[in-house]
This record gives sequence, structure tokens and C-alpha cells, in this order.
Amino acid sequence: MSVLEQLQDFLRIPSISTSPEHIADCRRAAEWVRQFLLDAGLRKTMLIEKDGQHPLVYAEWLEAPGQPTLLLYGHYDVQPPDPLELWISPPFEPTIRGEDIFARGACDDKGQVMILLEALRRTLQDTGRLPINVKVLIEGEEESNGANLVSYVSANAARLSADAALICDTELFAPGLPTLCTGLRGGVFGELHVHGAAQDLHSGVYGGAAPNAVEAAAQIIAALKGVDGVVRIPGFYDGVQPPDPEELATWKTLPFNEAEYLKREVGSVALTGEAGYSVLERTWARPTLEVHGIVGGFVAKGFKTVIPAKAHAKISCRLVPGQDPDQIVTVMRKAIAKATPPGIVSRFDVFSSGPASLVNPSHPILRAAAQALAETFGRPTVYMRSGGSIPVVGLFQQALGIPSVLMGFGLPDDNLHAPNEKFHLPNLYKGIESVSKFLTVLTKVP
Amino acid sequence: MSVLEQLQDFLRIPSISTSPEHIADCRRAAEWVRQFLLDAGLRKTMLIEKDGQHPLVYAEWLEAPGQPTLLLYGHYDVQPPDPLELWISPPFEPTIRGEDIFARGACDDKGQVMILLEALRRTLQDTGRLPINVKVLIEGEEESNGANLVSYVSANAARLSADAALICDTELFAPGLPTLCTGLRGGVFGELHVHGAAQDLHSGVYGGAAPNAVEAAAQIIAALKGVDGVVRIPGFYDGVQPPDPEELATWKTLPFNEAEYLKREVGSVALTGEAGYSVLERTWARPTLEVHGIVGGFVAKGFKTVIPAKAHAKISCRLVPGQDPDQIVTVMRKAIAKATPPGIVSRFDVFSSGPASLVNPSHPILRAAAQALAETFGRPTVYMRSGGSIPVVGLFQQALGIPSVLMGFGLPDDNLHAPNEKFHLPNLYKGIESVSKFLTVLTKVP
Repeated sequence: MSVLEQLQDFLRIPSISTSPEHIADCRRAAEWVRQFLLDAGLRKTMLIEKDGQHPLVYAEWLEAPGQPTLLLYGHYDVQPPDPLELWISPPFEPTIRGEDIFARGACDDKGQVMILLEALRRTLQDTGRLPINVKVLIEGEEESNGANLVSYVSANAARLSADAALICDTELFAPGLPTLCTGLRGGVFGELHVHGAAQDLHSGVYGGAAPNAVEAAAQIIAALKGVDGVVRIPGFYDGVQPPDPEELATWKTLPFNEAEYLKREVGSVALTGEAGYSVLERTWARPTLEVHGIVGGFVAKGFKTVIPAKAHAKISCRLVPGQDPDQIVTVMRKAIAKATPPGIVSRFDVFSSGPASLVNPSHPILRAAAQALAETFGRPTVYMRSGGSIPVVGLFQQALGIPSVLMGFGLPDDNLHAPNEKFHLPNLYKGIESVSKFLTVLTKVP
Repeated sequence: MSVLEQLQDFLRIPSISTSPEHIADCRRAAEWVRQFLLDAGLRKTMLIEKDGQHPLVYAEWLEAPGQPTLLLYGHYDVQPPDPLELWISPPFEPTIRGEDIFARGACDDKGQVMILLEALRRTLQDTGRLPINVKVLIEGEEESNGANLVSYVSANAARLSADAALICDTELFAPGLPTLCTGLRGGVFGELHVHGAAQDLHSGVYGGAAPNAVEAAAQIIAALKGVDGVVRIPGFYDGVQPPDPEELATWKTLPFNEAEYLKREVGSVALTGEAGYSVLERTWARPTLEVHGIVGGFVAKGFKTVIPAKAHAKISCRLVPGQDPDQIVTVMRKAIAKATPPGIVSRFDVFSSGPASLVNPSHPILRAAAQALAETFGRPTVYMRSGGSIPVVGLFQQALGIPSVLMGFGLPDDNLHAPNEKFHLPNLYKGIESVSKFLTVLTKVP
């Protein structure tokens, strides 16, 4: 089977980790990865399983004494495909149109896991060995809660010890432009609960005297962030480290067109955010606060004139270097308490949190990665950050003490988490070539 | 069947007018009322039907020449019962606990429609006739949009001509205290729609640059009303007529205990609303704005870090004499447009609206009603207003040129529009007696 056929096979498994009805499919995807690694010639291939959690896949090849050890990471689970009606071809029937393959998980992250697996398989087949030592860890809960990975990595630091991790789960800044990601935002993710009267009340009878939980939630949210995009929580920006001038200067050289971004990616009437910062600075190097969802009161069709007794809003802050997640939770809670109107009781529950992470582009392993990419693509590697959070980077830093190389091959229009997710096939092949070359270049790292 | 058994029968029909899945139940409730009126001896009993609308029930008895004509009004439709889990007994299985009957619609308005129907039936059975002329109009869209009633009344002023209307849909100020309601707030009821990006976006990737529809909705709501309970829409309070000093003075004599009201009726940690006005003034004679429900973005269990593309909020204003609903819509839309943040498109759709209404307590028909109540309850009748809206009062005034007698028998703790709605059974019997007596007293009105 060609690598493309293998990828199609992998994409047909609906391994949606957040849906209980897909537990067996997640196990099937894990088994598929393990079998591939076994066939490729890796050692100690295994599933690491725990009740109620999706299995981790582990494998290793440690027969290059004196050479560096690289920990390869990816995830076989995918996001739910809803809304299904917006897909041109079914999400779990991979379909090639032009140079793209369309399927849920095509880019995030099965296509990129395929790059790692095929680079190992091909190198082992062609040379009978790998140039460096390799440990492979492919998880199945990146799109849900990652509980299995966190407990396993924390408890098995010795088994997983390595010089660096290679994470294939990010993107090229633009087609054909070799890219390393050197920074990720951290975050605080939680839910605001607002309570007013003992139960929903008739707004005619009580309007003017009883507190309204939905209005209170709106007033609290409006107090947390202004229409100018500035977070209004006192202390929120304390300690924020700006990118250094060199990094900022390189961002200005990236091929970014704000009008195209507005039209093709966002699709609103205008962009928003803090004045005085470019879009890349705002999304990569500035902290933000976003409300992901709100619900309260009567929301069905028709009209019901109640004063809602409760409202709930899911809220997160994206954090940048210099911000401490625990401190952010403290100042958020203080600001929420202060903004809570009379008659209302509010509470902010934290769901998860983690700090931002930066890697230093002058680290020898990063330099090796940049060289491998540049040689493959035939042009210099650029450095970007990502506004998202990849918690595993913080986990590897904290539990294993290693930096992560974020070498990804997605494209900005790959529709991650959205209908018609795709992967650009030339990037599959360039990716395999880049990772293979990286393994070789790493042999020269002191 | 006793009147109580009849009421239980009536309450078992889930005639929720706002829910398309209950269209047949609404028709069943209308048919139930028509049959009762036919059996009672009324003439020309009929359903007035129009495509896509719930039927009106009409009946008449016009065999008292020279006597006044009274138009009896009530509604057979009910509010949705959600949230279901808070009901002690199921909303459509009427259950008697102590002296109360619990069911959706027990007080609003099936219990009170029962008072009208039974007063007619009993008088006709006992005396073979009615002392005055009567027209009966029971609608099925009071809790939705009332479109059928508005068009029918407007087009049939001659058939419905009467000296006054009797509306049984309000409450006693306190148990055992005979009460007439002399004022109702009007209202503007609508929905705010907020749109940002073309679709939900990943908050990591786009947070800081893409507009957030839920935040925009919150900011708009916060701009419409302050935490001090003051509506911040410019022009909103223009023309508001305060109650006259005499009316205000009588309100001060009513048995109202703010601490009890907070504890037993509202159940929040404090009351809210405009400073400098009593609770009765705030809820009866001051206009308000309330948000009844909001929804947007990801609201299921778990966490999905999207920037929501859309948000929707149901909003109403309660209006007092001196405020024009159309003018209020105009100033609301202007304020919403002004509060709409960059990158967002917003729209306020009006669902329905109507002015406030007042009746003069010294009108002879009002005096007759006060006398009938006082004789039944054995103490003087008091006058109150209601903060709710009964649009039919304005409609009868405008289309038929008649005042409405608001003689209601609910209690403040009857949980209208809320779980565990109830009706106090002694009020059912006192109500039937009061209405029967009112028909007789009216024969003496000049």
C-alpha cells in the first residue's frame, strides 16, 4: 500500500475522542497506529490503556548509542464532524479533490501523524536502521481532555527521557514556506455561573425589582473586556513579555495580507482587537479573553417573558509569556466579583489552565530542524508563533525537561475543527522528506 | 362533574400555544371550552379559526333587552412548563396539595376561565336566564402572539359591541383582599440577533483579531441597562406619566412587606431596581427592560474553544402610560446600533408590542365590580396596578371603545410562568360567587 492509501485507511476510522459512542473506533485507530509501527520495524510497540480513557500508542528504536534521542508526538483522535450538512464529501470517506485530501482529521492530526510514521518506516526500510534514537508517543485524547497522556508522562519520565520532542501538529505560515513554530499561548479555561432569584420569575410582575441573571452575566462579561478588545481585568497585563525586536522584525517579513485574512478566513465586516498591534502580534503575542458560549433563560422558539434565575458562560483567557495562569485566575475572580451586580451571586470554575511556552530558535536542535526544512523546501525557514495552546509542550517541558520542535505541515485554510477539513498532499510528501532529513541532521548535533 | 373535576379535566390538556408540537392540544382546549359553553346554555357557541393560528372560542346570551352587555375574556393557552425537573408533580397532571391545585395554567388562566364559565353555567341553571347580556371570547394565543384575536376583534367591532369587558387574568393583592386592577404596563417584545465572523472560529488561532458575537451581545445588553437598574437608552423615559398622588397614597396602605417579598417571592440575595422608588412603584408604574434568554456559541457539556459567530437574546421593555411603543422601538434600535462593537452586525426584530393602559375607578361599571367583590369577600375592595401586560385591554379600548374590568383571583405566590404554578381553591369558589354577583349588580348600572 502506498502512503496515500495508508492515510486513507487511517482517515476512515471515526476516532472522535469526545463521543462515548466512538470508544471502539478510538481503540481501532490506536491499534492501526501500533500495527503500522510494528510493520515498520519499531520495537516494544504497545497500547497503554486505562479504564475509561483512550489508549496511548508507544514504540521505540534505541539502537543508535551516542546519538540524540527524539520523542515523536502526534494524536490519532479527531474533532466531531458537525455540522455534517456543510461537508461536500462525507467526513469519514476521504476524498481527493485537486491536490487536497478531504476528511475529518486529514490535517489535525492524522495526516501529520502519517508523516512521522512514514518517515520512520521509509528510513528503516531503506537503511535497515535509524540514524538517531527514537521514542514514539501517539495519544487519543488531544481533542478531549488528555488525562491519560498527562498521568502517563508524569509517571514515566525515565522511560520517555529524550533530548527533545518533535510535534507534528502545526502549520506552514504559507504554502511552500518552511516554518517552525517557536511560541504558543497558554490559557485559563473555565465557566462563569450566575444566579439571581430562586427560580425564573414573570418579568411583568417582577421586572424592576428582581435581579436578572442573564443581564448580570452580560454586565460581568462587558466589564471583563471592552469593545476596544482590551481586557479590563486589573492586573491582567502585568508582566506580559513582548516579543523581542528581532522576532517582531521577522514577523513583518512574513507574507500576510490583512484584507485577504478578513475576507477569506474571518468573514466579518471588520477585524477587532487592541489598537497599536498588528494581527500577528494580537493573535500570537498578546493575551486575550474570549467567551465561547453563553446560555440562560428561555431560548427556545417563541417568547417567554421570564426573568432568568441562572446563566452560564464558558470563558477562556489565552496567555503569553510572563503571565502566570494561577495569578490570572485570581485577578479574573476578583474582577468578576467586583462586576457582579446587586442581588446576584456569581462563581468562576476553572476547567483547565497552563502557561504559554516559547522555544529558543538558537537551540541546536531547533537549528537542525530549520536546516532540514530549508533543504527540503529549498528556501530559508521562517519562525512564527501560534495563538493556540498545545498543552503537551508545557507537559514535556515540565515533566521531561525537554524543548519541543513544532514542525507542522498544515496550511492556514485547512479548516481545522470545521467542515471540509483537508490536507494538502504535497505537504504530506514534503513532510516525510523533512522529518527523514531531520533525523539525519540530528546526528551532527553536539 | 363538579367544577373542580371540570377544571382538572381542562388542566390536563397541554395547550402550549408557542410550541408547534402542541397545535392539536390547543384546538382540543378550544373545543373543550366551546363544549362547556354549549352545555351551559350559551348561544351561537363556535370556534373562530384561521390557518396557522389557534382558534378563538365565541359564545353569547343576548336575551336581556335594556340591560348592559358584558364581554367576558380569558385564554385557554398556557406557558411552556420548562424547566420540567423543578416541578413537584407533573405540569399536566393537576394535583391538589392542601388548598391549592398545582398545574401549568392553574392560575394563568384556566382556573380563572373556569370562574367565568362556571358563573355563567350556574346562573343559567339556577335561574334559567342571565340578568344581563353576555358575549364570551376565550382566546388561545395570549402566551404567544395573539394575532388571531387582534385581527378578529378589529374586524368584528359590531358583533363584539359591549358596555365593558370583564377580564379574569389578574390577582388579589393579598389572600382574602378583594382587588381590582386599574393599570397594566404595556410592552415591546423582540429578539436581538448578533453576527460576527462567517462561522465559529478557533479562539486560539483567531482570538484577538476576530469579533466575538457573544461578547458583542453582552456588551449591547450592558449598554441598554445599568447595574443600577436604570435603562440607559436615550429617550426611553421621555413622557413617562407618574401615578397621581392619591393613587400613590393608596398603594402605601396596601399590606406589603418588602423583606417577605424578597424572601418568599424572589429568593435572591437582594432586590434590584431604580433608586428612589418603592417596589410597587418600580413594578407597576416605572418602565423596565428585561432579557428573557440568551444563547450563543458552544453551550453543551465540556469545552470547545470557539469564537461564536452568532448570538441571540430575547428582550422586552415594559412600558407605562405616556410611552409610545413605536417610539420605544425606534430609540431601542438606535441604542443597539450605537452599542454594537466593530466587526459585528446586529438587528432587533419586534415580536409584538402594545401601550400601557389605565382604567378610571370611578366609572359606574368599575364601581359595580368593586361592590360585587366587597360583598363576596366581606371587606372593602382595594385598587392596585399590575406590572404585566394584558394587550387585550388596549385592544378592547381601541377597537371597541370599552373599558375593561380587571377582576382577578390569583395570588402573588401562584408561580405564574414558573414551575409549580398553582391556584388557591378558595379563590376559585369566591371568584365564581363574585362574577355571578357582578352580573346581578350590573342590572342596576344606569
